[in-house]
Amino acid sequence: MHFASDNWSGAHPRIAENLTRHAAGFASAYGTSDLDKAVEERFSAIFEREVAVFFVATGTAANSLALASLAKAGGVSFCHADAHVNADEGGAPEFLTGATRLFPVEGPEGKIDPRALETAIGRFEPASPHHGRAMAVSVTQATEVGTVYSLDELDAIAAVAKSRDLPLHMDGARFANALVSLGVTPAEMTWKRGVDILSFGGTKNGCWCAEAIVFFNPDLATDMPFIRKRSAQLFSKSRFISAQLEAYLENGLWLELAGHANAMSDRLRAGLSGKNTVRLAWDTTANEVFAVMEKSSVERAREKGAKFHEWQAPQGWLPLPREDETLVRLVTSFATTQDEVDQFIDVV
Amino acid sequence: MHFASDNWSGAHPRIAENLTRHAAGFASAYGTSDLDKAVEERFSAIFEREVAVFFVATGTAANSLALASLAKAGGVSFCHADAHVNADEGGAPEFLTGATRLFPVEGPEGKIDPRALETAIGRFEPASPHHGRAMAVSVTQATEVGTVYSLDELDAIAAVAKSRDLPLHMDGARFANALVSLGVTPAEMTWKRGVDILSFGGTKNGCWCAEAIVFFNPDLATDMPFIRKRSAQLFSKSRFISAQLEAYLENGLWLELAGHANAMSDRLRAGLSGKNTVRLAWDTTANEVFAVMEKSSVERAREKGAKFHEWQAPQGWLPLPREDETLVRLVTSFATTQDEVDQFIDVV
Amino acid sequence: MHFASDNWSGAHPRIAENLTRHAAGFASAYGTSDLDKAVEERFSAIFEREVAVFFVATGTAANSLALASLAKAGGVSFCHADAHVNADEGGAPEFLTGATRLFPVEGPEGKIDPRALETAIGRFEPASPHHGRAMAVSVTQATEVGTVYSLDELDAIAAVAKSRDLPLHMDGARFANALVSLGVTPAEMTWKRGVDILSFGGTKNGCWCAEAIVFFNPDLATDMPFIRKRSAQLFSKSRFISAQLEAYLENGLWLELAGHANAMSDRLRAGLSGKNTVRLAWDTTANEVFAVMEKSSVERAREKGAKFHEWQAPQGWLPLPREDETLVRLVTSFATTQDEVDQFIDVV
Amino acid sequence: MHFASDNWSGAHPRIAENLTRHAAGFASAYGTSDLDKAVEERFSAIFEREVAVFFVATGTAANSLALASLAKAGGVSFCHADAHVNADEGGAPEFLTGATRLFPVEGPEGKIDPRALETAIGRFEPASPHHGRAMAVSVTQATEVGTVYSLDELDAIAAVAKSRDLPLHMDGARFANALVSLGVTPAEMTWKRGVDILSFGGTKNGCWCAEAIVFFNPDLATDMPFIRKRSAQLFSKSRFISAQLEAYLENGLWLELAGHANAMSDRLRAGLSGKNTVRLAWDTTANEVFAVMEKSSVERAREKGAKFHEWQAPQGWLPLPREDETLVRLVTSFATTQDEVDQFIDVV
Repeated sequence: MHFASDNWSGAHPRIAENLTRHAAGFASAYGTSDLDKAVEERFSAIFEREVAVFFVATGTAANSLALASLAKAGGVSFCHADAHVNADEGGAPEFLTGATRLFPVEGPEGKIDPRALETAIGRFEPASPHHGRAMAVSVTQATEVGTVYSLDELDAIAAVAKSRDLPLHMDGARFANALVSLGVTPAEMTWKRGVDILSFGGTKNGCWCAEAIVFFNPDLATDMPFIRKRSAQLFSKSRFISAQLEAYLENGLWLELAGHANAMSDRLRAGLSGKNTVRLAWDTTANEVFAVMEKSSVERAREKGAKFHEWQAPQGWLPLPREDETLVRLVTSFATTQDEVDQFIDVV
Repeated sequence: MHFASDNWSGAHPRIAENLTRHAAGFASAYGTSDLDKAVEERFSAIFEREVAVFFVATGTAANSLALASLAKAGGVSFCHADAHVNADEGGAPEFLTGATRLFPVEGPEGKIDPRALETAIGRFEPASPHHGRAMAVSVTQATEVGTVYSLDELDAIAAVAKSRDLPLHMDGARFANALVSLGVTPAEMTWKRGVDILSFGGTKNGCWCAEAIVFFNPDLATDMPFIRKRSAQLFSKSRFISAQLEAYLENGLWLELAGHANAMSDRLRAGLSGKNTVRLAWDTTANEVFAVMEKSSVERAREKGAKFHEWQAPQGWLPLPREDETLVRLVTSFATTQDEVDQFIDVV
Repeated sequence: MHFASDNWSGAHPRIAENLTRHAAGFASAYGTSDLDKAVEERFSAIFEREVAVFFVATGTAANSLALASLAKAGGVSFCHADAHVNADEGGAPEFLTGATRLFPVEGPEGKIDPRALETAIGRFEPASPHHGRAMAVSVTQATEVGTVYSLDELDAIAAVAKSRDLPLHMDGARFANALVSLGVTPAEMTWKRGVDILSFGGTKNGCWCAEAIVFFNPDLATDMPFIRKRSAQLFSKSRFISAQLEAYLENGLWLELAGHANAMSDRLRAGLSGKNTVRLAWDTTANEVFAVMEKSSVERAREKGAKFHEWQAPQGWLPLPREDETLVRLVTSFATTQDEVDQFIDVV
Repeated sequence: MHFASDNWSGAHPRIAENLTRHAAGFASAYGTSDLDKAVEERFSAIFEREVAVFFVATGTAANSLALASLAKAGGVSFCHADAHVNADEGGAPEFLTGATRLFPVEGPEGKIDPRALETAIGRFEPASPHHGRAMAVSVTQATEVGTVYSLDELDAIAAVAKSRDLPLHMDGARFANALVSLGVTPAEMTWKRGVDILSFGGTKNGCWCAEAIVFFNPDLATDMPFIRKRSAQLFSKSRFISAQLEAYLENGLWLELAGHANAMSDRLRAGLSGKNTVRLAWDTTANEVFAVMEKSSVERAREKGAKFHEWQAPQGWLPLPREDETLVRLVTSFATTQDEVDQFIDVV
């Protein structure tokens, strides 16, 4: 019963196999091989336009370097208070952008409230050396708390950003989960909504280590080769990323895996909603479930071998757990089985 | 005939297989799994003392973060002018250390001359806000030009460093090749010589992506978890590095692979030394051969499909190639075959 | 009627004269002259213990380099949301500390609420590479909004900081105003309360440009000469700062000037409190007055030549101005005259 | 007999007086006052074109922020090995540019050799993430060793820079001394030669603290207000710089002072050239004299109260001092008297 995180799973067999398949032979290094180029073209096909793609080691790197490509002195990026860049990346976005700042914006269910965004940006208008200047907006899709922005919600964020000429970044560590949840195309969820740069995550969804920064306007990417190398994120044997992504993107494997993870969360949600020792904390539609559980129930589940994390309640979220309750996060992945889910439902 | 770089090869079958073997199941993330811990212990065993080990994405990251752990305001690190940190890492060591400086030191055959090192350090003595202050010495073993410091030569460098209380870093991107070349133990080539921090490279020698920072005094490593995360170098599915290294270090595979690469270079050197269209540029003992070739010979080899790079002559190296000659670098790896070598010798 | 800022005033005549007095002759540069040393000793006398003193160009530099001396990877400093470091320094604290982060803490009247501080620090406990780690607490005395922490309030902040082994920094851009307001000694308001590092401001109180970083434990200052130079804050003709501070600190001039500025604010407050076009926004005790004015009254005052800024209302402050009102900040200084104050009271 | 440095002198009486004259009254802060604007216009008049001017605290800040305005990831700036940015600024240029690099270029008499510059730039061509990319060329006028580039020599440097589309920065810490030495106009020595950004120094030539960054193309300066604030270099009471510069630039005072300093060096040079205990090390034409003196003579001079520094011999400079000799630097300033010079000549 592994619900601790989607990064506790390993690699999907087809991805592992493809890596092995490409292990032999020689290929030019640092992202210049035929395989690298083929995978880059695959990205353009998937996104229905020419994109520039840069592989990096971690989701944190993808987010940080995406913002670094937009960095300017006194710059401020706006993100949700619970966003990974703000809460979980150890200062990497600040460090790797040369000390630009993040400004947390509130909003329910892990989503930026467009009016709050407007107010937040307004604090830096007009641009001033004292207060700084707006530099970018970053949304997380799916969010950190299992919810997914609708296309309309993305449009509303983009409208605020565009009205200030601010580029829009999307942290897509769980991009495929969001896509499947919405049932739209990659293009529809990104550049057609006004997204300029995407952190495309494959690691949480069945790859070993496959994160890419995708520029929908390649002209914005001219500095990126230097930014990436300066940050020690240029792999020599780049094809080990490409080989993962080749399999990941082939025949829709990525969407299949995300679909499975989401379905497992759906099943978990459905199963838990009938329990009286548990209540769902808020509605989620990607591969995470947040639930308020009785502490005795948590203990029992753990004794039976269930793995999951207790979670810090988001600001403003109500009603708070009672003394004898706690908030838990349950994450499913491509590797979650129905049995695990059903067993967990039984246990709590 | 692939002699462009050891990072043009892929992954050794046993490493690829082990990665696949560990692909299934769940393991805690961010380097906390049992496999991660087992591999860390393996490092302690190999180095015959308790070490602290940190996996990172690239050799550039290993070098940069090793120096970052020693960083101080106004700090200056001393390295050979041709060292990778100085010549090939796009400013990452400076950037990731918070803008400390590198001071290049000359010396023949890619090795720091201890007297030149002494003079260089002397320029920053006594420490002054105006000139800065010495912070670290970094040696590359094997060097960028295929040579290997003897234990005595390492002692001489270490003696200079220690006499100034300077920590000694070793860039071991080709650590195994140097080890095999000298026929000594890992301990003998590192902490027994005074090395404090090692960049341990596996990528060039048969891994996909396996670089580790090894602290011989774990007390020096207390900040490293934060430094690594701040630099976006903490892998979530850390076991994909551990699985590679498990196989790499098992039954001496790493030394076997390095031994093969070195032997292929020896064979190449031997074969080329009898040619009259080629002369060896200097003596090498690791997995690189540098040769002055007639340009017509270069062209012929390339037509036959040989891959290799022309190389910038090191400063002060003599005699320079004639007009109709050029300096080339030939790198062998675990994947180089005798046939490739023999074919190349035939062609030139 | 100049109430825009205390930095709109120039230099006090005795400070200007002393600068002229020291203009002739030669003195060793970069802070090593006899005058520099004499002023440094004066600081030790004033603070009743041996301190280390570093002159820098601006208050922003003093704050930023004070924090830089405490910087560590993943570090987070806690300050009030309205603190100058957080709101008005253009990212300098982040940039000059190598991209550490600020975490804003709420509290009424511009003062950190100790319980909110505890909660905020708690978010980073235990220290983790993902979330970062607590690094420092910074209080502003007097605050940005004209209030002054009592000694008890400082004790409460320090108690939280000390219980977590966190160093305490005080931004004393208006240090003298706070001191006079409380009627205590410099020692009582700083190290006797647990302050470790002070940004000692002279500029707003009658100097041209005189800001000093004061370390109450000189052992913490060993890196500061390098940090200061690296940040281009080491003056060559350092005695031009020392000459200002010599006069500033002589015969209590600094306290006299701050006393005058505070008295002018008192007079302004008293005069405005009887008006029906104006209400005091909150109680202040240093050299600033915040008032809610009818917009027509603001306009009238400006027509008569009054200079002052409208101000952004602090979060949570109530009751908000009505549609036809606005919040204004009125700052007095050593150069404010009774006539100016009385004239302003008449006008509104 | 003060020949230690031109920054051992204080402020010229007319500058000190003007500072006092402007001490009273109120003026808007942060560089927005009428006086600030008047002085900025004065710069445009002096340089015979519209320029953008930014005051900063130190010469190191002027150089570092000038380069920061040109910074890009992987960027490399080329300067003479003995340039202040490279040798004496404690890493500030690297730190304040976000860790770009300096590449030292050799050349006789403290001047960049244009061919060596070409070779140096060539090492970074074509731009590559591994090696980095050329970002700027910086010349020092007058140089660190008392020499002055002729207009032709500046043209040669600029030609190399321009052929690579590289901006040209001039460190003019001793700008006036160079100007007087060449007998040309400010325009002729700067933008007419291809200089894009100038560090204009007033401190060494009679100001307390007056350094300005001058952009000959104001369009290049749009980020500078943010860069300056981020680096804590924006003075609140900016008029204390402006007041100095107003007097400095009035009626050619600055050229008069530099002329005097240069004349004192000429006199010193002439006087020393007839001595047999001393020989001039190389020819200088600004306000510095470098001489090889017998150690006994150095000792005698110091006993008589002469202040001066022994100096590190530049690389490649010949013939080296004998065992009983040493190289000394003698700097004159606006405050040097004929008597001091004559007395020194007598003593040695």
